[in-house]
Amino acid sequence: MSTPSPAASTPALTVGLLGGGTVGSGVVHLLAEHAEEIAIRVGARLEVGPVVVRDLDKPRDLAAGTLTDDPAAVVDDAAVDLVVEVMGGVEPACAYITAALERGASVVTANKELIAGHGTALRALARDKGARLEYEAAVAGSIPIIKPLRESLAGDRVRKVLGILNGTTNYILTRMTEEGMGFDEALAEAQALGYAEADPSADVDGHDAASKAAILAGLAFDAEVVASDVTVEGIRGVTATDIAHAARMGYLVKLLAIAEERDGQVGVRVHPALVPRAHPLGSVRESYNAVFVEAEAADELMFYGRGAGSLPTASAVVGDIVTAARALRSGERPANGSAVARKPIAPFAEVWGQHSILLDVADQPGVLAAIAQTFGDHGVSIKSVWQEGGGEAAQLLLITHPARQGAVAATLGSLRDLDVVRDVASVIRVEGGEV
Amino acid sequence: MSTPSPAASTPALTVGLLGGGTVGSGVVHLLAEHAEEIAIRVGARLEVGPVVVRDLDKPRDLAAGTLTDDPAAVVDDAAVDLVVEVMGGVEPACAYITAALERGASVVTANKELIAGHGTALRALARDKGARLEYEAAVAGSIPIIKPLRESLAGDRVRKVLGILNGTTNYILTRMTEEGMGFDEALAEAQALGYAEADPSADVDGHDAASKAAILAGLAFDAEVVASDVTVEGIRGVTATDIAHAARMGYLVKLLAIAEERDGQVGVRVHPALVPRAHPLGSVRESYNAVFVEAEAADELMFYGRGAGSLPTASAVVGDIVTAARALRSGERPANGSAVARKPIAPFAEVWGQHSILLDVADQPGVLAAIAQTFGDHGVSIKSVWQEGGGEAAQLLLITHPARQGAVAATLGSLRDLDVVRDVASVIRVEGGEV
Repeated sequence: MSTPSPAASTPALTVGLLGGGTVGSGVVHLLAEHAEEIAIRVGARLEVGPVVVRDLDKPRDLAAGTLTDDPAAVVDDAAVDLVVEVMGGVEPACAYITAALERGASVVTANKELIAGHGTALRALARDKGARLEYEAAVAGSIPIIKPLRESLAGDRVRKVLGILNGTTNYILTRMTEEGMGFDEALAEAQALGYAEADPSADVDGHDAASKAAILAGLAFDAEVVASDVTVEGIRGVTATDIAHAARMGYLVKLLAIAEERDGQVGVRVHPALVPRAHPLGSVRESYNAVFVEAEAADELMFYGRGAGSLPTASAVVGDIVTAARALRSGERPANGSAVARKPIAPFAEVWGQHSILLDVADQPGVLAAIAQTFGDHGVSIKSVWQEGGGEAAQLLLITHPARQGAVAATLGSLRDLDVVRDVASVIRVEGGEV
Repeated sequence: MSTPSPAASTPALTVGLLGGGTVGSGVVHLLAEHAEEIAIRVGARLEVGPVVVRDLDKPRDLAAGTLTDDPAAVVDDAAVDLVVEVMGGVEPACAYITAALERGASVVTANKELIAGHGTALRALARDKGARLEYEAAVAGSIPIIKPLRESLAGDRVRKVLGILNGTTNYILTRMTEEGMGFDEALAEAQALGYAEADPSADVDGHDAASKAAILAGLAFDAEVVASDVTVEGIRGVTATDIAHAARMGYLVKLLAIAEERDGQVGVRVHPALVPRAHPLGSVRESYNAVFVEAEAADELMFYGRGAGSLPTASAVVGDIVTAARALRSGERPANGSAVARKPIAPFAEVWGQHSILLDVADQPGVLAAIAQTFGDHGVSIKSVWQEGGGEAAQLLLITHPARQGAVAATLGSLRDLDVVRDVASVIRVEGGEV
């Protein structure tokens, strides 16, 4: 006598995948592994249908589904209720998703470049067609941040978002901080461990974080923000000396993505920043990600977790599949029905904050006076100064009071013209509390 | 010429409140302050209708709504689309919410005692009536944790939840840790600052955290868990000595709510625990709350924020109001349609873990041998031992390898019978990584 399957009388929805790589096979694995719980949570069984791959001959570890190299089998077939895009890249993914939404299918994607570049248009298309477009996995992997911003904070007003959105750079900075490594050594280790690509520029130059920051800023401020709106500075210039100076003041160096709205302008930037060690972002080590949100009524919130990895990403994708499937079952129209407006982007020069400035200077009388005079000329006031070294050359570490980025940039220009200043060794902004 | 209001042609939903205290007036304030954005996000204006209060003569700071002392004006009037319960207490809140759900109204509540005690029945009633029941604010204030557990992790499997769910005790433990205060002094300060009640037992004895832990465990493991299923130990027994010993090992003492599922059994407990300083929960200071989740595919997640306070709580309530209002507008049936089963509750004695045990002992030869023998007799193995003091009396701090709680309890019983053991000064479990 066989046990009767409770699923026999349960309706089914068919999930089609674009992409059968590690994230895709993770998604299929989770759908198979947790099929029973998911059927209860959705009120329908989720069956894996066609899985579109480029190379049918490549060996794959797929727990279910039928391999095909024909995208139309997922994109155009009305038998596929939910389209899951885990192939990556902007094209042809964008064309496929557009076609799927056009026929009214709901779409789940983990593709940050795509959403950062075309999210507004795709959301508008989904709205018009009564379809869902879910993309929790596109930002910060498995960390639920899209839903909290879109739903939980829908009755509040977000002031500022601070994110550690790139695991590779956070790993490198953690190793530099905890092991005293230089950037090159830490990068080489990250590459050896597979945390960094052979060409690491998308990570270490901040572009990956910038795409994610654009998506978060758009959601937080109901605005259209694209990656090219983001001012970006990577971590190649961060030295062991910077990290040692920060540590002495009780700070850590982190690559932060920062989005804020002031006076109707949205400012988004990615750059290294000093963060107090006791700040919640200070506990985000190794390749973990986190998003810290300051909201008017909710005050401070932080969301922490794995920003990448095939299983964490697959978990977020399957969470989105369940959300979209529930909506299909219940006949709900898209939840995020509001159109977003293009808001003015704040010029980077207008950003206020404290700065930590390290100068290589000649060790001779009057140096400090000349430097202090230069700061004063530009209206930037100095909070504290440390001097180190002696003999021929010395280093000065200056911390400013909060000042306009533009005024600090002008100050740095004038400092470089001073004979006694040999080099501006580094400039790092301060976030998360005053030094 | 007056500016035409975009809201004129927008449909409206009426929100009725049960309770007009600080959270209630915070909710009304947020609905008024952010009325335009909320109207866009919901696709309908949200208008505050009747606000039920006990005392009509008490001065209140309400931005909108009509005061009444008749609960029927909210509970029974079909003109009220959404019922918001912010009065607190189990009765009559439970009767009011039941009546509102019976007539098909959706309900938002911030009431942890109510959901911990009657959540399963109320959710079933909401399901039957096609109404929504939202309670994000009932656990950890403004921190979105209900939706992530119910939706984002719906395709994953939660292994364990570790929560700092009570702001008062976390404040007290933070002051003891950072200022070297004793429990009584820190409690007195918390009371003076309004963080602790005159009768602090609900907080310091762990009962508040236990209610929240029951709700979280139920959601995480699709089970019915009530507060009386939770094994509870508060922080009255935590001493400055415990905290100093923990600090020397790189640990902090936190009051943790811990829920886990093993072999089909759900175990839920609240007790002080040693947490590694570098663990993300180690950065949760003062009155902040956090929920740390270990899931099979998503790996580690943490959600951090204000666990209490009228504005943070109001932010979570309004987020729920927006969610429920969107569902009303879109005709969605309740998302969380699945019934939950009563699962067996794991006996506390079966819980495994490391223990930090502080003994007052006689300072004489053979003491350590006798004590070690006792541990060995019960199959509990010792990982490390520190001895302090000398002369007449000494203290031994022992850290066990992971052991069954029941075996440790039996060991403690035998230790108390030894002549050389004067007192078992403290026993604290270790969570979040091995000592």
